[in-house]
Amino acid sequence: MNSQIQYHYSTDALAHVSGFTTSAAACDIRNKGNDRLDLCLIHSATPCTAAGVFTTNDVVAAPVTYCQDVLAEGTPIHGIICNSGNANACTGEQGDRDAEEMLMEAEQQTQSPEKSYLVCSTGRIGEVLPMDRMVPKIQECAQNLSAEPQNATDAAESILTSDTRPKTVRAEFTLDGEKVTIAGIAKGAGMIEPNMATMLAFVITDADVETSLLHKLITDATNQSFNRLTVDGDMSTNDAVLLLANGQSGKQISPDIPEGLQLFQEALNQICYDLAHKIVSDGERITKVVKIHTTGAPSDLAAEKVCRAVGNSLLVKTSWYGNDPNWGRLMDAAGYARVGLQMEKIDLHYDETPVLLQGKPQTQNRADWKSIVSGDSFTIHLDLNLGAGKSWILSTDLTEGYVDFNKSE
Amino acid sequence: MNSQIQYHYSTDALAHVSGFTTSAAACDIRNKGNDRLDLCLIHSATPCTAAGVFTTNDVVAAPVTYCQDVLAEGTPIHGIICNSGNANACTGEQGDRDAEEMLMEAEQQTQSPEKSYLVCSTGRIGEVLPMDRMVPKIQECAQNLSAEPQNATDAAESILTSDTRPKTVRAEFTLDGEKVTIAGIAKGAGMIEPNMATMLAFVITDADVETSLLHKLITDATNQSFNRLTVDGDMSTNDAVLLLANGQSGKQISPDIPEGLQLFQEALNQICYDLAHKIVSDGERITKVVKIHTTGAPSDLAAEKVCRAVGNSLLVKTSWYGNDPNWGRLMDAAGYARVGLQMEKIDLHYDETPVLLQGKPQTQNRADWKSIVSGDSFTIHLDLNLGAGKSWILSTDLTEGYVDFNKSE
Repeated sequence: MNSQIQYHYSTDALAHVSGFTTSAAACDIRNKGNDRLDLCLIHSATPCTAAGVFTTNDVVAAPVTYCQDVLAEGTPIHGIICNSGNANACTGEQGDRDAEEMLMEAEQQTQSPEKSYLVCSTGRIGEVLPMDRMVPKIQECAQNLSAEPQNATDAAESILTSDTRPKTVRAEFTLDGEKVTIAGIAKGAGMIEPNMATMLAFVITDADVETSLLHKLITDATNQSFNRLTVDGDMSTNDAVLLLANGQSGKQISPDIPEGLQLFQEALNQICYDLAHKIVSDGERITKVVKIHTTGAPSDLAAEKVCRAVGNSLLVKTSWYGNDPNWGRLMDAAGYARVGLQMEKIDLHYDETPVLLQGKPQTQNRADWKSIVSGDSFTIHLDLNLGAGKSWILSTDLTEGYVDFNKSE
Repeated sequence: MNSQIQYHYSTDALAHVSGFTTSAAACDIRNKGNDRLDLCLIHSATPCTAAGVFTTNDVVAAPVTYCQDVLAEGTPIHGIICNSGNANACTGEQGDRDAEEMLMEAEQQTQSPEKSYLVCSTGRIGEVLPMDRMVPKIQECAQNLSAEPQNATDAAESILTSDTRPKTVRAEFTLDGEKVTIAGIAKGAGMIEPNMATMLAFVITDADVETSLLHKLITDATNQSFNRLTVDGDMSTNDAVLLLANGQSGKQISPDIPEGLQLFQEALNQICYDLAHKIVSDGERITKVVKIHTTGAPSDLAAEKVCRAVGNSLLVKTSWYGNDPNWGRLMDAAGYARVGLQMEKIDLHYDETPVLLQGKPQTQNRADWKSIVSGDSFTIHLDLNLGAGKSWILSTDLTEGYVDFNKSE
């Protein structure tokens, strides 16, 4: 890591970015009669540039469509409104109207222009939002906006669903004597509630970044982080990563200033990687995080296919749960990725320990294999020795707890 | 079903096909000190035409390669030798030599010509076969070959691994006063033992069928049966479906005799479907078999993608296990097949009960949804209303029992 960048993991991350305020409220969206926080606003009085990356599922929730439309228009952005407990997905025209009403309320109550807010929802699918309970709380949130640490912590908590803890990170670096801050919050992906999960991440910065550069930076960072997670292989209707930049640090990030761009890019990549790792580690009832690293593939895409075949194989994932260094299941899964792998060329390592060399089991290391996969975090390195393609993903084991958690209504 | 064809499900199915003999033996291939049957011969003194369908995994076990080579040469076939308990996969050159030795022993001991036997192995991956214990038992099997019902039952049992019961079916029909018999045995797919499963099916008939027609018939039957199963989405290194025809009924099956061809085709398709259904129903610790039927897709391939996305979704499978009629998870999974589905056009039925009509939840039927998915067998029908493409697969739920069963070494 670059020593010029400082990282902080306190839950009040969003409170440290100049010009942004936050607040959260409890609407009892799930109608459970409790006061769990389930609504938040993230606001900037000054206009932001903004960019987003979204689910590529054919079935897309109303808020995702609205965010895409607003970002395509390129109007200045002033904030994000987000609710948990209900995904506003598969809700038809009523869902469209509700997303629009959330946006309008947020914009009006914060005295922001039209089409200056982004909206996200996460939680149960196929049910309409309780707008009667939400509208008064949007007004309350708008009145309570502040840069107080407690507000920022509440915002990070309000977007959670089945997560067991908030996921926050902040990076700071200095450019020409001025501090630049980037902060992010996220909620988990692995999957959810009675119904449906979502991976959401909101990143805000006081740097001044032009829209198209912002889009490139968040796309690259997402491809090296959130797009490399697999807990159960499922992809939600609501996945969204949003990045807002309000320029209040006075420091511009652009290709004309390579040092600043490099620092910003590195900090953003690290923030997204840290949030992604926190999401996987907090996957539903998982006990292990496994990095699968494939090299020597015919292409990067082929390497990714191998990583995903291994990382999504139920047989591989259950063997990890059982602390079983089962390279047979692993090779079988790699084989059905069908990238042309040849068993007699394969080198396989668990962490640094050889398991197969040119396809031959290194059985003298059997005790070490067992010890490594009995840990709660390890790396699988598969070298196909066919080409220069490489890729990696983060995966998890599959546990009885996952099945138990997700079977219930 | 065609009333001209009679189906029988006794475990001695193979004993009823003219000119075929069988036997089985216990070699203790897994080195557990027990006398579980783990080797069998299926033999015809008169030469057979033969055809096979095999795994498309990049990692292919030695026996699969040998079968493909022998079938490509087109020499007359006299039998099958099969062991369970060890897959002879990822075993390098030693594995090739062992497969070759199994074949040579079987051929010599049954006084059959060279390259007249097919070989299959199923079980643990990555370990060499105990040939010293197997060779004497191959000799014993050759001496004990007979058409006794007990021998046929033993053969059906000897190929099992984690299956809880043998899978057998036999069809008979009459052509011009002569009886034609087709019989099949199979072992399960879902997945297996400590290490690796295989789906194996051996079908034999006393009809006289030319090789290329036999190949077409078994390929078509497999595409409508074994290729439409998913228990955990994993595909083994050893999957094989073999069909042998020795002509001893005296009845020829060919396009020149449409009535006979139609009866044969229908009986073969039904045998493969029945064996496939038995495999899924006996999947490891599953509690439900679910048929997923997609229609109205842009193409048959698109329909199959939707079926597989739904049938392999962990979230969908766990919801079935929990008797939860969770159409939200189902639509999310269908959406990430990315065939261009449009939520507002979807009709979804559980059995005959509407769940979504033009994308709108039919919540008045909620109690019926629950009742249907609480059963041990039901059909999901998803009509995309986009085109004429259609497909189906058989899937299962995902249970804590599956995870528990597969986590152990």
